[in-house]
Amino acid sequence: MTSPTSHPAGLPGLLTPESALQRGVEHLTITFTGMVSAETVERLVFESYTALRRTAKVNAHLPVLAARFAHERLTALAQAKGLVPKDAPEVLFVCVHNAGRSQLAAALMTELSGGRVHVRSAGSQPAPQIDPNVVEVMAATGLSASDAFPKPLTDDVVQAADVVITMGCGDACPIYPGKQYQDWNVGDPYGQDIEVVSKICDEIEVHVRQLLAELVPDLADLTAGTATSEEH
Amino acid sequence: MTSPTSHPAGLPGLLTPESALQRGVEHLTITFTGMVSAETVERLVFESYTALRRTAKVNAHLPVLAARFAHERLTALAQAKGLVPKDAPEVLFVCVHNAGRSQLAAALMTELSGGRVHVRSAGSQPAPQIDPNVVEVMAATGLSASDAFPKPLTDDVVQAADVVITMGCGDACPIYPGKQYQDWNVGDPYGQDIEVVSKICDEIEVHVRQLLAELVPDLADLTAGTATSEEH
Repeated sequence: MTSPTSHPAGLPGLLTPESALQRGVEHLTITFTGMVSAETVERLVFESYTALRRTAKVNAHLPVLAARFAHERLTALAQAKGLVPKDAPEVLFVCVHNAGRSQLAAALMTELSGGRVHVRSAGSQPAPQIDPNVVEVMAATGLSASDAFPKPLTDDVVQAADVVITMGCGDACPIYPGKQYQDWNVGDPYGQDIEVVSKICDEIEVHVRQLLAELVPDLADLTAGTATSEEH
Repeated sequence: MTSPTSHPAGLPGLLTPESALQRGVEHLTITFTGMVSAETVERLVFESYTALRRTAKVNAHLPVLAARFAHERLTALAQAKGLVPKDAPEVLFVCVHNAGRSQLAAALMTELSGGRVHVRSAGSQPAPQIDPNVVEVMAATGLSASDAFPKPLTDDVVQAADVVITMGCGDACPIYPGKQYQDWNVGDPYGQDIEVVSKICDEIEVHVRQLLAELVPDLADLTAGTATSEEH
């Protein structure tokens, strides 16, 4: 009655991620020597891979994305421990799918702050990919989504954040003392057409500008009214 | 424009999970001394909390569930490293929500094997709670779901497994060499009425008995036809 093994469990090489992940572990163990134990690095790389694989649509580049995700999480861990200098306020944007609102907010904050704010994003239930209409609106606004991918909310990035912004998923985020939490009430671009997504992008930009003015007051005057390409 | 802080970020005590989680870390660090580093224990407890919080419906008991989840994951890690004796075959059941099929399979295997097989379960996109109709069918069949809760698929439990059974989510699970993978084609109880769920439970039981006969051949003769209460 039991159906036969349907996975290529015995096949070596490309179909098993182990060797690619081990290369990521070796590289990151060197990068984070003296900050994070080799055991933690290994766990984070493999757990990042499994976490992305749970919800990803295409598995081809997952070991590469997992190494990038793990690198970001290890950096966050080292920041939270005070082991790497924090040269900019750290803002974490969280929404449900990490495919729309939090990606738009992250891209806008990165662009508008000119690197004066460091940004991360995550989702409580990450989508298989970034919403195509969101990618289109970002491109039309001069924002890049090429390096972005949906990923689950993890503890390390919350611990490293100075400001946590939730959009539609407030209860999904742990509350720790010493951090600033805001819940932004903005529309959800999921399943919406380009026009609606564009309006939601504008809504988010208003919030981002306000937060930026609070975090980096001297920057606010310089960027007022000159930010995204639709206003040029 | 930015809405005011909506979370009780500044409130100490019960509303922040930190102290409860730290107690869990202290306890588990002692339990796993010599097997897993204190840093890994801390990361696993906090990440388990954040992982459950992403999708849980009620947050009240999450620090307790997180400590139990972390304990299971640390045991799996120690097993995968060969640091704790493995006295039974380790079977991991994975479905989409860890709220129906994988919970039924885990409960059936635990019951039918009489402890001769050790069982874990997980979901690629865990639900807020176990499906109430599944709980009802389990109760009617003499199976207990009182300790069970939906949790995401993690790398540690895959690494520790001898057999990985997927139901409706094959692509979500990492493939490692040396493990037996099976994909069971059974109905999804999500949103179904009690009768349908009951039939799915019977389907799963057939698969479970077959797997049990492969894993513990001498047990198969003893249990044939005497297992769940509806057959008593």
